[in-house]
Amino acid sequence: MIKNGTIVTATDVYQADIRVKGEKIVEIAEEILPSAGAEVIDARGQYIMPGGIDVHTHLAWPFQSTGTADDFESGSKAAAVGGITSIINFTNPGKNQTLIENLREWKEKAKISAIDYGFHSIINEYSDEILEELPVLAKEEGVTSIKLFMAYKGELMVNDLEMYKIMKKAGEHGIVTNVHAENGDIIDDMVAEAISKGNTDPIYHAYTRPAELEAEATARALSIAEVANAPVYIVHVSCKEALEKVEMAKKRGVTAFAETCPQYLVLDESYLALPDFEGGKYVCSPPLRDKSNQEVLWAGLASGSLSTLGSDHCPFRFEGQKTMGRNNFSKIPNGVPGIEDLYSIAFQYGVQEGRISLQKFVEITSTAPAKLFGLYPNKGSVAVGFDADLVLVDPNRTRTITAETQYQNLDYNAYEGREIQGVLTHVLSRGDVIAKEGKFTGELGRGKYQYRRAFHSSLLGGSADARSKQKSTI
Amino acid sequence: MIKNGTIVTATDVYQADIRVKGEKIVEIAEEILPSAGAEVIDARGQYIMPGGIDVHTHLAWPFQSTGTADDFESGSKAAAVGGITSIINFTNPGKNQTLIENLREWKEKAKISAIDYGFHSIINEYSDEILEELPVLAKEEGVTSIKLFMAYKGELMVNDLEMYKIMKKAGEHGIVTNVHAENGDIIDDMVAEAISKGNTDPIYHAYTRPAELEAEATARALSIAEVANAPVYIVHVSCKEALEKVEMAKKRGVTAFAETCPQYLVLDESYLALPDFEGGKYVCSPPLRDKSNQEVLWAGLASGSLSTLGSDHCPFRFEGQKTMGRNNFSKIPNGVPGIEDLYSIAFQYGVQEGRISLQKFVEITSTAPAKLFGLYPNKGSVAVGFDADLVLVDPNRTRTITAETQYQNLDYNAYEGREIQGVLTHVLSRGDVIAKEGKFTGELGRGKYQYRRAFHSSLLGGSADARSKQKSTI
Amino acid sequence: MIKNGTIVTATDVYQADIRVKGEKIVEIAEEILPSAGAEVIDARGQYIMPGGIDVHTHLAWPFQSTGTADDFESGSKAAAVGGITSIINFTNPGKNQTLIENLREWKEKAKISAIDYGFHSIINEYSDEILEELPVLAKEEGVTSIKLFMAYKGELMVNDLEMYKIMKKAGEHGIVTNVHAENGDIIDDMVAEAISKGNTDPIYHAYTRPAELEAEATARALSIAEVANAPVYIVHVSCKEALEKVEMAKKRGVTAFAETCPQYLVLDESYLALPDFEGGKYVCSPPLRDKSNQEVLWAGLASGSLSTLGSDHCPFRFEGQKTMGRNNFSKIPNGVPGIEDLYSIAFQYGVQEGRISLQKFVEITSTAPAKLFGLYPNKGSVAVGFDADLVLVDPNRTRTITAETQYQNLDYNAYEGREIQGVLTHVLSRGDVIAKEGKFTGELGRGKYQYRRAFHSSLLGGSADARSKQKSTI
Amino acid sequence: MIKNGTIVTATDVYQADIRVKGEKIVEIAEEILPSAGAEVIDARGQYIMPGGIDVHTHLAWPFQSTGTADDFESGSKAAAVGGITSIINFTNPGKNQTLIENLREWKEKAKISAIDYGFHSIINEYSDEILEELPVLAKEEGVTSIKLFMAYKGELMVNDLEMYKIMKKAGEHGIVTNVHAENGDIIDDMVAEAISKGNTDPIYHAYTRPAELEAEATARALSIAEVANAPVYIVHVSCKEALEKVEMAKKRGVTAFAETCPQYLVLDESYLALPDFEGGKYVCSPPLRDKSNQEVLWAGLASGSLSTLGSDHCPFRFEGQKTMGRNNFSKIPNGVPGIEDLYSIAFQYGVQEGRISLQKFVEITSTAPAKLFGLYPNKGSVAVGFDADLVLVDPNRTRTITAETQYQNLDYNAYEGREIQGVLTHVLSRGDVIAKEGKFTGELGRGKYQYRRAFHSSLLGGSADARSKQKSTI
Repeated sequence: MIKNGTIVTATDVYQADIRVKGEKIVEIAEEILPSAGAEVIDARGQYIMPGGIDVHTHLAWPFQSTGTADDFESGSKAAAVGGITSIINFTNPGKNQTLIENLREWKEKAKISAIDYGFHSIINEYSDEILEELPVLAKEEGVTSIKLFMAYKGELMVNDLEMYKIMKKAGEHGIVTNVHAENGDIIDDMVAEAISKGNTDPIYHAYTRPAELEAEATARALSIAEVANAPVYIVHVSCKEALEKVEMAKKRGVTAFAETCPQYLVLDESYLALPDFEGGKYVCSPPLRDKSNQEVLWAGLASGSLSTLGSDHCPFRFEGQKTMGRNNFSKIPNGVPGIEDLYSIAFQYGVQEGRISLQKFVEITSTAPAKLFGLYPNKGSVAVGFDADLVLVDPNRTRTITAETQYQNLDYNAYEGREIQGVLTHVLSRGDVIAKEGKFTGELGRGKYQYRRAFHSSLLGGSADARSKQKSTI
Repeated sequence: MIKNGTIVTATDVYQADIRVKGEKIVEIAEEILPSAGAEVIDARGQYIMPGGIDVHTHLAWPFQSTGTADDFESGSKAAAVGGITSIINFTNPGKNQTLIENLREWKEKAKISAIDYGFHSIINEYSDEILEELPVLAKEEGVTSIKLFMAYKGELMVNDLEMYKIMKKAGEHGIVTNVHAENGDIIDDMVAEAISKGNTDPIYHAYTRPAELEAEATARALSIAEVANAPVYIVHVSCKEALEKVEMAKKRGVTAFAETCPQYLVLDESYLALPDFEGGKYVCSPPLRDKSNQEVLWAGLASGSLSTLGSDHCPFRFEGQKTMGRNNFSKIPNGVPGIEDLYSIAFQYGVQEGRISLQKFVEITSTAPAKLFGLYPNKGSVAVGFDADLVLVDPNRTRTITAETQYQNLDYNAYEGREIQGVLTHVLSRGDVIAKEGKFTGELGRGKYQYRRAFHSSLLGGSADARSKQKSTI
Repeated sequence: MIKNGTIVTATDVYQADIRVKGEKIVEIAEEILPSAGAEVIDARGQYIMPGGIDVHTHLAWPFQSTGTADDFESGSKAAAVGGITSIINFTNPGKNQTLIENLREWKEKAKISAIDYGFHSIINEYSDEILEELPVLAKEEGVTSIKLFMAYKGELMVNDLEMYKIMKKAGEHGIVTNVHAENGDIIDDMVAEAISKGNTDPIYHAYTRPAELEAEATARALSIAEVANAPVYIVHVSCKEALEKVEMAKKRGVTAFAETCPQYLVLDESYLALPDFEGGKYVCSPPLRDKSNQEVLWAGLASGSLSTLGSDHCPFRFEGQKTMGRNNFSKIPNGVPGIEDLYSIAFQYGVQEGRISLQKFVEITSTAPAKLFGLYPNKGSVAVGFDADLVLVDPNRTRTITAETQYQNLDYNAYEGREIQGVLTHVLSRGDVIAKEGKFTGELGRGKYQYRRAFHSSLLGGSADARSKQKSTI
Repeated sequence: MIKNGTIVTATDVYQADIRVKGEKIVEIAEEILPSAGAEVIDARGQYIMPGGIDVHTHLAWPFQSTGTADDFESGSKAAAVGGITSIINFTNPGKNQTLIENLREWKEKAKISAIDYGFHSIINEYSDEILEELPVLAKEEGVTSIKLFMAYKGELMVNDLEMYKIMKKAGEHGIVTNVHAENGDIIDDMVAEAISKGNTDPIYHAYTRPAELEAEATARALSIAEVANAPVYIVHVSCKEALEKVEMAKKRGVTAFAETCPQYLVLDESYLALPDFEGGKYVCSPPLRDKSNQEVLWAGLASGSLSTLGSDHCPFRFEGQKTMGRNNFSKIPNGVPGIEDLYSIAFQYGVQEGRISLQKFVEITSTAPAKLFGLYPNKGSVAVGFDADLVLVDPNRTRTITAETQYQNLDYNAYEGREIQGVLTHVLSRGDVIAKEGKFTGELGRGKYQYRRAFHSSLLGGSADARSKQKSTI
């Protein structure tokens, strides 16, 4: 039972009481009288919002000769404390494994999770067999999204033809393709050139991955999705040049969606130039961009050209991991942490500073991710019949982000010292209070794997199912 | 009590029972047990949607030497039957009257209404006194929207400077300015030229009001709103050229919104060329356009560049009214009927034919109008605490639109013979069942005047209040 | 005879000798042997370019309760020294005069001119009689361009309908309409507001004429030209917002052209904020803009979206004229001088600094103005049969602009102290050497009135005559 | 000596006499008296234009298991008769050959040519050695353009990284990169899919090479040129989608140029659907497009977003060559003939039908190609010092295109039966009359190899040299 709070959905803000029974919201009413023995939370003065859904996490992820610093234990605790009640994590492609074998390994890894989870299957090695697996993956395993990389050649990258074939098959089965859009080939050459000239500082990470090459790859992925007639989701859009490509594709009818991340909204290229290798902490790909991009990305969220906010939580410790690249920026593992702070950063810089409304905040952190990735209608809203994944936020209290108190398994926080007006008093996952006032109060292992539905565009934006528009001539 | 239905909001679709007490929704739950004596509607297999809000009606409106054929009696019945539970009607500007005196006359006229209502005050004669009235009108009378015409010189039109001054003052007080955007001066000259050449048939109505002049005026109104720092709402966008101007203005940060109407979505210029003066039935301004505009407008609704659907219900009987222009198209009173069919037309051609989702349908017919024009949060959603304005639609049954059975006081229907898959089984207004299966079951006079809130952009799109961004330099 | 120079046209650069006979170029050849007694100029190392054509001058022009400081004597001398061999000056509209009567007065005034001249007739008072005069003006008097103002209400401004009617008639007779595009009504209100608040400094001239209102009026004029099916020439485009409108209109097929001026290319808004009323010197309309506009305008010249460079030479002395507005910026006569320096400023900042090629320099300063305004093919190129209007420029020598040595009748120069690499060694007008090394060597009164041809779009850009595309439906 | 003609350059049209001495134009004058014994052509009523420069030819070119039907004998005769006095032909990449060795073979092949020629070196196999050869090729051999293919995998295609490296080096040495922009990988898959479904008719050639994939590759090539800071020339733009990418790239400052071909201007997709395998005659890549693209491409030529017209003359006989693909469209050798008719088609449909001016005609057929590809200032204009490559056109006489009389070594003509108002009375190459009234009157072997200059952007458009803007950060 939650009484007296202000419920926020992607469209509405209103005051009502909520009754939870089992894992579900079963009643929303003007006034609900608590049954005997029921636990009651008084939410007066607080917002009740659907739990955050972070569809871009890299927990327990082997990458660039090391692995991310958070596993499903520390990662899911950090998420819970930060208002995230569901994640979709990337698998890593296994060598000599089918996607389904690989998925099973990841399900095993994730069993310890305190919050609900699903997976995007990364495909880095094309084969005809993989095409055959896709419908099975979607239908039997509920994995209705995959991810392709246009960068990290040798490790993750696929080529255009492979992307086309995979997207085509994916589109036929309601599978959304996530794309990391940077022209990896040319970037690798620029990196090699910079290193060969002795330009080894973290700032060269930005100079060797110019916005033009993110825009190029974004445009290419969108065109391939267009001819493959498949839904595509561009992850971590960092700059106006790439966003413009997304907007143009939407305009011409491509079933295209895009995400940005908190780091692109509040950090910028100048962080990479911090002295004493501090810049290394902020190395992620695409790189942080010129500050002028920030307001463009916020406007993209407000207007809907960007659908979601993902953390791209890909955490590496500064000492021992980031420092691997002290003498060569290309050896710095790519990624910044964010799962614990995504929700708060968006609330502060979005809602509190007037860039987006409360409803838009709910949409980008919960409703849109749920709809795009098949978690809807179990998750993504505060309504009868939905999972009782709820975040209670007191917008009148303030806290300060600091690595000292974080649950992330890290020796720094990218948002150190920032003040957030908005304290997450309670976080509920399927009715359990898993965090209270910044303390984890849940149990490890209680998270459940989420079987996800096939993509259907009628949930998004309002246009009809893209598949029905297909008019193949060949 | 409504049981077993599928609730639709602008974001969610889910199954639950609804309990209404007095005029309000007080409970939404998995299962609600009816209290003794409670009336129960079984909505199994039906959608429960918020009542339609038509913000563009001309009931009882004197115009072009005649008056519209529907008053608040026939008009509100037709609305009720058609799923519209609230309207915002235009006043006509009174000579030698203050806006408030005029408003009171209109409130009197509307007392007979079967549904709720408000008014946009038309301003056609600028004076400094009117500027002083605006804050009073908004605060004391709850009229938070006005309308300006850029056409119909001598009758309604204001000039650019007047528009600027009015918008500036309106913007300061959260008043939204509706704009009819056509370049009236040049149109009048084109009309005179056509008539002088003997080109008197209805089709010349279209030829003398080209899309370029709608686009021009739209661009001008948007620019004036931009420098006046005021919210603007372009009514009845009919063509891609004008829509493009709206999109560009939004992109550069103007607090701009736009509406289209069912006639522009399903009728086209060829109707004006029908023989035997049949074309006269379809004379409205802006005129019906080339068919290629239809899908562009639907896409605008789906993407959000068009926020709402209004009927522009401005009805005239064929015999005796439309026929006044049999020998001179410029004497045909301008307007087509739509209040009774708006909801059904949008449901059929939008939802059933796959152009927009159910949620988007709710957004454009109810939620967005409510938010834009200060009816929210009493109206505009199905949620606890909102007015029990509800429409129950059975999407599996079919009916045919025909003038024979309509409540509109007219001898034709612009959508005669069209089949609609979706029967409105019940229409509730503040808990009263005012229509059932196409029959009016309400009472005249039960409608209430709506005091409307000031505009605040945080309800729309997600951007912050435009007024806070003002950085005047003079 | 000019030997050994490098001839530059809008397309070619090549070395050849030139023979002039009478007023014309009669021969261009590899080597021409001078006939006995012929005057020979050795142009080795110098460019030979067609004389500058400044189509935007206000010599002897009554304005804002005063008159411009240069008449046809000082003005034509300054022009000659500055490389301008032809001008098109604005008439002022006479009260109770026909256009043709007014033209005759102006022809009288201009008789003293040292260079060739024509007139754009300003129309500030619409009448049906004026429409009838237009074809006569064009055909009998060779005045194939007019000018309309969208600002300066009461003095010069016409309204939209008048503009439409005039453009329509003008278009039918190959008359180009110059438009000063600023929304004068709203500007006047902003000016009054600023003054009423005590904001009287020159910088408020910029703040009360925002780029948005230039863009609005530009869009409006272009749309009106579009429906009037007439060629339009937007004078003094000052900002990216307005330029964008021009580009969009061209894209959709409007016969639209635009000009910018040297002041918008090298000066900026900050000049208006100079202390001690220095800012008053730089008051012109549209006002100087933010510096970021400069490169956008240069790019517009390079790409062809801007066709020409005009000086908008509208000179007022600082003492006694500009200072009339010392306590009220709205009393400062609007205008900056430029006729003497236009050519040099464009050569230095355009050619020498690499923003435009030599050919493009010739195009914007001579060829395009000649073609647009009916001086071609007598003027506008260096070719056999053309008038021997030639400027010889030594690109290796340097001079400094200063009011001290100027011919302009002014106590300041807007480009004081700027170094120009490029000395105009000789300026020829129809074979006469009218200036040498910055000294006027011509004769007053030798200038000839130019009967100008009707506009034909085949000369510009390459598209066919707009008039032939007319498909009027009324 | 040519008397009484009307000279046309890319900017001017005027009447004058021309004197040719040796291979050069040495004098242009009002009246030239013929010296004794001089051959005099009376060009009264005719245009004298610079000889056509076709920078896109495939004479003697091995391709797709066969070879083009015209060699330098038939091809150069056809060119001469058709008003083309210079060509730039593609080499084919030799296996186990350096570019320079390959070039020498091609120079040998071309010795028989009746007209002047140069070569674009095709690079289809990247190696570091080739990068080293580029500056030598440009400087010593005068080959200042290369060509890369994004289609025809296995035969010609290079990948993105190779393109980047090559463009980067090319840009440093003033070498222009021609790009065939279609996404070959995905096309190959579509082709295979169509064939596997039994869709073997020529129309499937169009369906398997959709405009979206031309646009994608165009955008990619432009982005790669942007980061490589190199000039790029997109060959054979066939559709509005690709043209739009070119326009956007120009707008953001890429040194980009584009060509279209006569087949895209006057033929369309419906030709591919002609019965009895007639469609096979019109198979070229990119394929003919929907007719709506034609006016867009003409407008692109008029506005300058398309710089040139090339024939893409890649001729195959119908019987024996085209028919190889009678049962499988993918076996039809790709290409249509055009060298003989390019000039006439552009004159008829461009100039005579009012889409482009005479000057624009000269620009796209001669001046722009000459400037882009380093033939200027020997070729590309009618001016003193230029090669006497001249075409005399009588615009009042008419001829009909037909395969019966063509010099092309083909059994069909893609423009069979079309009437051209404009007879080429004389074609001169360096002073020799090589064709008269449609008859070849020149000599084989008189053509000369053209050493071409490095690209410098100051010749085009007017912007400064792209290389000087380079601000590499790595």
